[in-house]
Amino acid sequence: MDRAKIRLCVDHPLGPGQAVPLTPEQAHYLFSVMREGPGARVALFNGRDGEWTAEVVAAAKKGGTLTCLGQAAPQLDPPDLWLIFAPIKKERTDFIVEKAAELGCARIVPVQTEFTNSQRIRQDRLQAHALEAAEQCLGTFVPEVTDLVPLRRLLDGWDPARRILWADESLVGPAETLAGLAPGPWAILIGPEGGFSEPERARLRALPFVTPVSLGPRILRADTAACAAITLWQSALGDWR
Amino acid sequence: MDRAKIRLCVDHPLGPGQAVPLTPEQAHYLFSVMREGPGARVALFNGRDGEWTAEVVAAAKKGGTLTCLGQAAPQLDPPDLWLIFAPIKKERTDFIVEKAAELGCARIVPVQTEFTNSQRIRQDRLQAHALEAAEQCLGTFVPEVTDLVPLRRLLDGWDPARRILWADESLVGPAETLAGLAPGPWAILIGPEGGFSEPERARLRALPFVTPVSLGPRILRADTAACAAITLWQSALGDWR
Repeated sequence: MDRAKIRLCVDHPLGPGQAVPLTPEQAHYLFSVMREGPGARVALFNGRDGEWTAEVVAAAKKGGTLTCLGQAAPQLDPPDLWLIFAPIKKERTDFIVEKAAELGCARIVPVQTEFTNSQRIRQDRLQAHALEAAEQCLGTFVPEVTDLVPLRRLLDGWDPARRILWADESLVGPAETLAGLAPGPWAILIGPEGGFSEPERARLRALPFVTPVSLGPRILRADTAACAAITLWQSALGDWR
Repeated sequence: MDRAKIRLCVDHPLGPGQAVPLTPEQAHYLFSVMREGPGARVALFNGRDGEWTAEVVAAAKKGGTLTCLGQAAPQLDPPDLWLIFAPIKKERTDFIVEKAAELGCARIVPVQTEFTNSQRIRQDRLQAHALEAAEQCLGTFVPEVTDLVPLRRLLDGWDPARRILWADESLVGPAETLAGLAPGPWAILIGPEGGFSEPERARLRALPFVTPVSLGPRILRADTAACAAITLWQSALGDWR
């Protein structure tokens, strides 16, 4: 069947004939903002069961119920890739989260570095941004956005089985090819405006699970570097192959 | 010498001892907004002669003069890559121009397609945006932004020696590798929200100089697709190798 235009992410199992309740916010969006009602077709996904076409069977001001009719798309999980980035200005941080969700990251980890401009983030707002990106781009998976964590503490507890691809802004030569890298769990690390401090750089260089990579001869903003690094990783090791 | 923090793009030759006049807008920015004056060091570039460190020797309300001291960075031209894209919402169009300038495109060509939302663009505003991206990212080259042109007319007069890499949103399978593509002049073509119309798609498919490419199994917004396609091209055929 045709995929429904309105897409909602729900926290509920999806399956044949499954009844799915709406939250007050979803009911408000669907019935007041979009002016839909009983009989309307909506696409639902929950991050596990793919996309389902569902029909509104009950509509109220603060809730409602849908019934799943059939699966419209299978579940598409991203590869085991995390994005670690230092939050920058609000709209560019939003942008990084949106692009990481679109390009296929499994987890988004904001880190505080010595030169990070922001001391705190609104984790709930960034998580909502990742969800919105999935809703708008026909995704069936929403990456988890974690709380802001100091880079030092993140590296202290790091599982060395997950390798880190470090977009090292001091390497302005030609980008190494990523084709030779080993498959498996990875994280991409993007620094803040102003880059990493010298102690941070020394620690990263010394870690055996960290691979520095250049992103070409031009200096890229952090949000551009995030897009470019995820793209290169996806085409070399991810599910774009 | 250390690279100056303030960077200006000028339309004037740069060389040893060269005197460079400022426009009224640049004088306003430098002397009123940034509160600089005689003796201040500024980085200048003109798109041809690299970056030069210059010193303010005369400051006035509507003008001023600098003298070039020495070259701080060589000229870095992008490869012969154009980006053709259908303008979308204002902030995302701005974003595409900024990212194309950062990632290294030589020319940016907005096209009108059957499903293009905007009927017109502010070419001067987009050109200023490309210049600002170069100024802020230590670039020495500013890609030309052309006027909006209908896709049909662009293809009618196309030089077949320049191949077109078409980000075909109907190809949602794995991205083909770009490594096998021939070097030479290229243009990347990104469609509007809603994609190309069936007649447009049929024409693109029939053109011998057009190569369709997939950007992975997820549906990408036009601005994300532009970033990803430029990145893949740069790492396969451009100056990121």
